[in-house]
Amino acid sequence: MSHKHHREDEVSLLGNQGTEYHFEYNPGILESFENRHDYRDYFVKFNCPEFTSLCPKTGQPDFATIYISYIPDKKMVESKSLKLYLFSFRNHGDFHEDCMNIILNDLVKLMDPRYIEVWGKFTPRGGISIDPYVNYGKPGTKYEKMAEHRLMNHDMYPETIDNR
Amino acid sequence: MSHKHHREDEVSLLGNQGTEYHFEYNPGILESFENRHDYRDYFVKFNCPEFTSLCPKTGQPDFATIYISYIPDKKMVESKSLKLYLFSFRNHGDFHEDCMNIILNDLVKLMDPRYIEVWGKFTPRGGISIDPYVNYGKPGTKYEKMAEHRLMNHDMYPETIDNR
Amino acid sequence: MSHKHHREDEVSLLGNQGTEYHFEYNPGILESFENRHDYRDYFVKFNCPEFTSLCPKTGQPDFATIYISYIPDKKMVESKSLKLYLFSFRNHGDFHEDCMNIILNDLVKLMDPRYIEVWGKFTPRGGISIDPYVNYGKPGTKYEKMAEHRLMNHDMYPETIDNR
Amino acid sequence: MSHKHHREDEVSLLGNQGTEYHFEYNPGILESFENRHDYRDYFVKFNCPEFTSLCPKTGQPDFATIYISYIPDKKMVESKSLKLYLFSFRNHGDFHEDCMNIILNDLVKLMDPRYIEVWGKFTPRGGISIDPYVNYGKPGTKYEKMAEHRLMNHDMYPETIDNR
Amino acid sequence: MSHKHHREDEVSLLGNQGTEYHFEYNPGILESFENRHDYRDYFVKFNCPEFTSLCPKTGQPDFATIYISYIPDKKMVESKSLKLYLFSFRNHGDFHEDCMNIILNDLVKLMDPRYIEVWGKFTPRGGISIDPYVNYGKPGTKYEKMAEHRLMNHDMYPETIDNR
Amino acid sequence: MSHKHHREDEVSLLGNQGTEYHFEYNPGILESFENRHDYRDYFVKFNCPEFTSLCPKTGQPDFATIYISYIPDKKMVESKSLKLYLFSFRNHGDFHEDCMNIILNDLVKLMDPRYIEVWGKFTPRGGISIDPYVNYGKPGTKYEKMAEHRLMNHDMYPETIDNR
Amino acid sequence: MSHKHHREDEVSLLGNQGTEYHFEYNPGILESFENRHDYRDYFVKFNCPEFTSLCPKTGQPDFATIYISYIPDKKMVESKSLKLYLFSFRNHGDFHEDCMNIILNDLVKLMDPRYIEVWGKFTPRGGISIDPYVNYGKPGTKYEKMAEHRLMNHDMYPETIDNR
Amino acid sequence: MSHKHHREDEVSLLGNQGTEYHFEYNPGILESFENRHDYRDYFVKFNCPEFTSLCPKTGQPDFATIYISYIPDKKMVESKSLKLYLFSFRNHGDFHEDCMNIILNDLVKLMDPRYIEVWGKFTPRGGISIDPYVNYGKPGTKYEKMAEHRLMNHDMYPETIDNR
Amino acid sequence: MSHKHHREDEVSLLGNQGTEYHFEYNPGILESFENRHDYRDYFVKFNCPEFTSLCPKTGQPDFATIYISYIPDKKMVESKSLKLYLFSFRNHGDFHEDCMNIILNDLVKLMDPRYIEVWGKFTPRGGISIDPYVNYGKPGTKYEKMAEHRLMNHDMYPETIDNR
Amino acid sequence: MSHKHHREDEVSLLGNQGTEYHFEYNPGILESFENRHDYRDYFVKFNCPEFTSLCPKTGQPDFATIYISYIPDKKMVESKSLKLYLFSFRNHGDFHEDCMNIILNDLVKLMDPRYIEVWGKFTPRGGISIDPYVNYGKPGTKYEKMAEHRLMNHDMYPETIDNR
Ligand SMILES: [Ca+2]
Ligand SMILES: [Ca+2]
Ligand SMILES: [Ca+2]
Ligand SMILES: [Ca+2]
Ligand SMILES: [Ca+2]
Ligand SMILES: [Ca+2]
Ligand SMILES: [Ca+2]
Ligand SMILES: [Ca+2]
Ligand SMILES: [Ca+2]
Ligand SMILES: [Ca+2]
Ligand SMILES: [Ca+2]
Ligand SMILES: [Ca+2]
Ligand SMILES: [Ca+2]
Ligand SMILES: [Ca+2]
Ligand SMILES: [Ca+2]
Ligand SMILES: [Ca+2]
Repeated sequence: MSHKHHREDEVSLLGNQGTEYHFEYNPGILESFENRHDYRDYFVKFNCPEFTSLCPKTGQPDFATIYISYIPDKKMVESKSLKLYLFSFRNHGDFHEDCMNIILNDLVKLMDPRYIEVWGKFTPRGGISIDPYVNYGKPGTKYEKMAEHRLMNHDMYPETIDNR
Repeated sequence: MSHKHHREDEVSLLGNQGTEYHFEYNPGILESFENRHDYRDYFVKFNCPEFTSLCPKTGQPDFATIYISYIPDKKMVESKSLKLYLFSFRNHGDFHEDCMNIILNDLVKLMDPRYIEVWGKFTPRGGISIDPYVNYGKPGTKYEKMAEHRLMNHDMYPETIDNR
Repeated sequence: MSHKHHREDEVSLLGNQGTEYHFEYNPGILESFENRHDYRDYFVKFNCPEFTSLCPKTGQPDFATIYISYIPDKKMVESKSLKLYLFSFRNHGDFHEDCMNIILNDLVKLMDPRYIEVWGKFTPRGGISIDPYVNYGKPGTKYEKMAEHRLMNHDMYPETIDNR
Repeated sequence: MSHKHHREDEVSLLGNQGTEYHFEYNPGILESFENRHDYRDYFVKFNCPEFTSLCPKTGQPDFATIYISYIPDKKMVESKSLKLYLFSFRNHGDFHEDCMNIILNDLVKLMDPRYIEVWGKFTPRGGISIDPYVNYGKPGTKYEKMAEHRLMNHDMYPETIDNR
Repeated sequence: MSHKHHREDEVSLLGNQGTEYHFEYNPGILESFENRHDYRDYFVKFNCPEFTSLCPKTGQPDFATIYISYIPDKKMVESKSLKLYLFSFRNHGDFHEDCMNIILNDLVKLMDPRYIEVWGKFTPRGGISIDPYVNYGKPGTKYEKMAEHRLMNHDMYPETIDNR
Repeated sequence: MSHKHHREDEVSLLGNQGTEYHFEYNPGILESFENRHDYRDYFVKFNCPEFTSLCPKTGQPDFATIYISYIPDKKMVESKSLKLYLFSFRNHGDFHEDCMNIILNDLVKLMDPRYIEVWGKFTPRGGISIDPYVNYGKPGTKYEKMAEHRLMNHDMYPETIDNR
Repeated sequence: MSHKHHREDEVSLLGNQGTEYHFEYNPGILESFENRHDYRDYFVKFNCPEFTSLCPKTGQPDFATIYISYIPDKKMVESKSLKLYLFSFRNHGDFHEDCMNIILNDLVKLMDPRYIEVWGKFTPRGGISIDPYVNYGKPGTKYEKMAEHRLMNHDMYPETIDNR
Repeated sequence: MSHKHHREDEVSLLGNQGTEYHFEYNPGILESFENRHDYRDYFVKFNCPEFTSLCPKTGQPDFATIYISYIPDKKMVESKSLKLYLFSFRNHGDFHEDCMNIILNDLVKLMDPRYIEVWGKFTPRGGISIDPYVNYGKPGTKYEKMAEHRLMNHDMYPETIDNR
Repeated sequence: MSHKHHREDEVSLLGNQGTEYHFEYNPGILESFENRHDYRDYFVKFNCPEFTSLCPKTGQPDFATIYISYIPDKKMVESKSLKLYLFSFRNHGDFHEDCMNIILNDLVKLMDPRYIEVWGKFTPRGGISIDPYVNYGKPGTKYEKMAEHRLMNHDMYPETIDNR
Repeated sequence: MSHKHHREDEVSLLGNQGTEYHFEYNPGILESFENRHDYRDYFVKFNCPEFTSLCPKTGQPDFATIYISYIPDKKMVESKSLKLYLFSFRNHGDFHEDCMNIILNDLVKLMDPRYIEVWGKFTPRGGISIDPYVNYGKPGTKYEKMAEHRLMNHDMYPETIDNR
């Protein structure tokens, strides 16, 4: 049995040859596709342990694991384009909390989701690590309250950190 | 002491010889049996770490652990038929979030449960892993509110992922 | 310093010689004693990782860890009798979810507790493991609402299972 | 640089020479000191993994880790006196749930705290371990409701126990 | 695509219907099959976390995880027959170290392996757990020296045990 | 490609040469900068596993991991200044719960945040470790209620502590 | 900065478009490339947690994590071709120990390595999991002795397995 | 099915009623029984996480987990007597390294084993924990060399300790 | 007490202002300093979890944790220069095993160490991760034999990898 | 029962009142006492997770866990004096590898042990952590060979480090 799949038109990146990698911040890389299950609220989470950017003050590389969770409305973010978008921070300088706010803003602009949250967990500098958490619910909907609810209950059990 | 058990009629698969395995998506495999404790709300959870399907774009195998939890009403899903049903995704191509929605839809159709949720945790591709979470409560009942409640509080402590 | 303790009358099993072990289901083994702190709501949890029964279809041994938590009213279950009661499932055949419901029912009958819950976590068969969760609050009291509340929020963070 | 500290009067035990250890239950050991931050609700937790007492039936030693958390009002418990108080159970016989209730009662009597809870996690006997959880909120205050709230949501994720 | 497999003659148990379970010690259950790779030394390990027997003094159930590793010569032990053989200790009474020696002796008799070792890790009784380790190398061969070598270096890093 | 970054004026410490370290308590070290995302509620967490101070009674060094989480209003605390501020406790003597209250008070004074919490987890003395948890919400706002809510639900799953 | 890389000739698969996936055993998929550091002995390890094949008796899917370690001589195995080769066991039926021996034999044939070992760790069936370990050193060289040495010291600390 | 077991004569403690507990050091408690497998070298390990004694200088309780491993010759130590023997250190004062040497000496005297080792892992005092390791091989035999070999290779991978 | 330290001449990078970061491979960044303890063999290990390079075929970023251990002779590698050197792979393309060999070769050239080893553990691509291990002992010395010995015993207990 | 212990003369620090803490390097703090078991080779290990010193270049605090293991000859190091000695590095500046060599040299001078090793595991700076390992065997004895043997086999399984 052999599988050779036809290419669909909707998503251009997945399985595509000759991918170009951009290492300067570029939200134009992001692509969306249609949510086939918009009759239902459900979550999609991306675990992204390979995020790296530059410190805007020192130019030194920063490293983080980013967790992105959202409830789609009409559109979903294509995962390969998300990967390439995150790569585009590689040689870009921004503070930890700015990166997280920017990623959230770009994904809101792309997808107009019902709900979304972005949590970055960075490696330490000078013995301290920083973990920004940003979320968003569509204004005027129950998802706005959901965002407030989740922020109010955010991270009451901080993971044990010993820098090793 | 020796145990040789009589076969009951209700469930055809458990302990049955000569099982046929189907590796193309087939919801007809699913079997149900009667819930003997429908006087009570209670949860049954299936932990399914051996799920594999194919990427619909590239044909490449995907792997996931799936967690299915439900409150039965009159019917319950027979566990061996669930195993065979999940095997039927083996050579079937579908996106992560579609698989989870389809599994939920098929189980709702089979059992008409009070509440059900399906959470898939996939292995990474391109450094990113995707975890869709879908749930359902019987419309017009308190279980519909339960589904909304559980979605609103879903996964506020994402597990640590480092792709190793 | 040496300790030789006098035997009290209330509880017959603890420290008793010549214990008989029954390996067929026998709820008559359960013994209760008086709750000295019934002026207060508090929890007692039993962790029972040595539960084994037989599959009613195949006769094959099943293994589980059972977690039992309750708020006592006037009576408490004596722990050694609970051990012997759980041993009595050793050569008894019943499905996972039936075992959990039966244990809960028997303990309710014995103690008439304010609240109780029973959670069984079984080892896998055919790559899938099953974890039933059952609870109960005294009808017409706030503990009935407590049971509903705990069920609604049950297990939103399923433990990672990989069958190894 | 060398540090030789002056002794303050308020607390008599910390750093004191010639401490006497009492191994029979003695609540008189407990000492309190003034809460300097009573303008604020806050928690103090004691992790006590070195608790041991005797089984009142068999005289056999029992071992537990005890977690004590409280919101102080005017008084706080001095930590060295707490250590000595817990040592005083060493050759004292009492059931698990009685020990936890007694410790809570003694600390309430000493400090008159706004809120307090005591959780004991014992090592197994006969394959089963027992974990009593007791809490208290000052009657007629919001802390009484807090106690009820915390009990209602207590331990919905029992830790995995395998007796190894 | 559907898979219905033909039954081969060599091994009678795998996939066989109507398996009888024997719960009294019975080494006759063990079956062997031919090693297709006897041109090479290699290890096969069985992880068996579902072992239970009875204490010969008290009749109380004992529980263990057993690790069996061997280098086959001409014969290998069939895994389903091994499962049934281990089940046959279920209602059989023997001390921990006797069980491990018996299992090793039975497997040596069945397979005449080049090398074999059996390690049982039991749950505690009275706060102490017991882990017997037995091994064997074919007398007069290098595998006899291998057994001596592995015994001499056995378990220099005992796993952390806290009975929880 | 080489990166040499221009220094901005806003923050004086990051990347600065010739940093002086002060090892006596000095809140004047703390520096703030402007929150660029004050249109949104979001969390920033600092994980600080390298905190050490002196016991005010005995002069002996204490060690803790401190977790600081806050929702900024107009100002944010600069991370390098936070590091230096925490260093300033190095040769300073104060009780565990006083240190946590002081750190919270100093950060409230610096930033006037919407919400903030400080949790210290100390290493044991005499077999017992102490973990104070302090929080604050801006009075008269919803963040005050948030502080009360988070305190009420604080640490219902104490981490397992065995002093090893 | 943008990266678009030229394709080299040596390796045909990496980054290649339109990959065909074969799900029947096919060692012809394997590709090798030249070892640039054959002046030195060094190890390369592949961690392969996504292996699945079929049980030759029952047709039921098996799942394993495979660890492959080798010291290259003149040739190395290309990692994408290894992935595709392992995929080719997807609908192929073979026993656990046969799969491991076949993989080792195919890689020896492809690369003629100085040393190689293959360790499969399968998920359990019937409560028992099987882990075959196979190794090889080039006959008549010191690597043959190395293989014997590593077999003799193989897995003296079996990982804890509880089937969950 | 019910199990009531006959008492054998060889071992007096297991299952015995009315056990007296002695809390002052008493090696006379130890009992031995005959090794039925003295035709073979094999290991028996005791994991003892419930050891407590008193510091001889301060009288303060010490806590340890003790690991005892031995190769029996003609005699074996009975596990319940070992438990009682270890209990006898409860109110006895001795330094960590003396306790370990004494336990080893007493067990050598009792059993005259081929090989034995005792490893104590204590909880910290003043931020430091102490772990003595003592072993012994019968003089003039290969087991004496074994003891030297195991000491030379002892604990090259110290477990991570953070006092929490 | 305040600390302002004088700069020593030997090492130019530590604490230096205005560090330039180079993101193309540049071994000239490495600096050494004198080993003050060359009268003794001892190990220094660097744990480097923030390594990233580019795949030479696809241009896609790769991520690894690198462990470097060595026994110095006359010279040691300065840790900040090592950090900058590893940063210089950031926008450089090379295969996993080439990177590890190059790092080892550069450090040998810089320090002429008695012994050195480099182990890279990469995140997976296509479900497989690759971990090259390279070592070196000064030719003609006992350290050459040490390298051979450590390679022969390398990684006999592969860490569990599940790509999550 | 109450314990008030007499003070012995041999060791002056344990339980002593009014301890002075010195925070500048001072090997004169170390005290020894007589080894009562010098008829036997045995190990004593100290786990010291509360070590802190200053970077000699920047003055910034460094943190480490130190593991010290030794085989005593005639003398042993008193544990409280070891604690105070390690405290004396608190405001002392020295490089990581110098600290470890100095500690080893001071303990050799104090005790003249048969064998000793010191392993420091530091928290990261700039994303890299450094772990020096130093050992020593009495020259001209078998312990010198033991030191060489243990160095040759040192740390072949580096712990996983991710700086979190
Ligand atoms: Ca950590
Ligand atoms: Ca740690
Ligand atoms: Ca990790
Ligand atoms: Ca992981
Ligand atoms: Ca796993
Ligand atoms: Ca697992
Ligand atoms: Ca376990
Ligand atoms: Ca455990
Ligand atoms: Ca454990
Ligand atoms: Ca544990
Ligand atoms: Ca711990
Ligand atoms: Ca621990
Ligand atoms: Ca497990
Ligand atoms: Ca720990
Ligand atoms: Ca993992
Ligand atoms: Ca870590």
